[in-house]
Amino acid sequence: MQRPGGRSARVRDAVRQATLAELAEHGFQALTVENVALRSGVHKTTVYRRWGNAEGLVADALALAEEEPWPVPDTGSVQEDLRGIALLVQSGFADPAMGPVSSAFVAAAMQDPAAAQALHRFFAARHDQSAGVVRQAVERGELPASVDAEEVIRVAVAPIYYRLFVTHEPVTPGDAIRSADAALAAARAGVI
Amino acid sequence: MQRPGGRSARVRDAVRQATLAELAEHGFQALTVENVALRSGVHKTTVYRRWGNAEGLVADALALAEEEPWPVPDTGSVQEDLRGIALLVQSGFADPAMGPVSSAFVAAAMQDPAAAQALHRFFAARHDQSAGVVRQAVERGELPASVDAEEVIRVAVAPIYYRLFVTHEPVTPGDAIRSADAALAAARAGVI
Repeated sequence: MQRPGGRSARVRDAVRQATLAELAEHGFQALTVENVALRSGVHKTTVYRRWGNAEGLVADALALAEEEPWPVPDTGSVQEDLRGIALLVQSGFADPAMGPVSSAFVAAAMQDPAAAQALHRFFAARHDQSAGVVRQAVERGELPASVDAEEVIRVAVAPIYYRLFVTHEPVTPGDAIRSADAALAAARAGVI
Repeated sequence: MQRPGGRSARVRDAVRQATLAELAEHGFQALTVENVALRSGVHKTTVYRRWGNAEGLVADALALAEEEPWPVPDTGSVQEDLRGIALLVQSGFADPAMGPVSSAFVAAAMQDPAAAQALHRFFAARHDQSAGVVRQAVERGELPASVDAEEVIRVAVAPIYYRLFVTHEPVTPGDAIRSADAALAAARAGVI
């Protein structure tokens, strides 16, 4: 019987940390079970048996990321909360340690259906958690009750991802604030 | 001396058509000079000399796409124009012939800096052309003169790309209309 935090959890964590480090340094295309095994110190046959391949490693790293709480702001003002969420996204990608890993997840999902499914679940959890700031704003009477809370989050962050992964334009904190404000204006106008 | 529409232009067009067909069927990862040469009937050494590699083929296909006019709507109503643009994007990706090619361009740009640069230029041209509907709305007095016309376009289409390439959620025509309306509400509110 395995206790939580026992050997199995330690192995999983070591493999995950190695996966994230490999993604950060070399991207998804270069991710292999061999390199993750070497880096984690976990035996290659164990990694093959439990994770199967690079896609399995990515899916598991995302599943763990999905469980982690995201520091969603709670300032009492929906405008500040939405700006805070957009700035979290923008600064996360600008971070030299986190940015390449997050980008590798997006790239992996474009190349592999299992990674796409894992990323889909990850974002469903993120949207649900972030939408709390919109639901609270509805309770405070700041936004109409008809608002689609998750759509407000999508509109607030989508221009950041669009610049990063589609048009390949730089993204400034000012851009993040502007897209958050755009989402809020749309929510106030009752169109989302 | 080469005349426009002469042998050189015909070769370029044949190679481009073959590139698009290969991208549609097999994606960027499987794109090779050999396959494009075979499919186009253009000699392999010619393709190598003029296009170099898969990235060169993608960049040239995008450069040609950039020159093509996009059927931007001109209905006399900025709401209908923006909805029309968002629906063009949504239906383009839903199209079984065009969708996979456009997706392959986005994937290629995530994997290769030259393709990213080419896609960046392509979107700069698209944004500029599409922003015409916003500039016309300003002239008609429908929107404030301070509006950032290209940002309105980004906000109108970004949620479509976000669903397609980041969260891997389905995109309906209703989603496209909603994101266009969100951009318009933000423009009217003066936040973009």
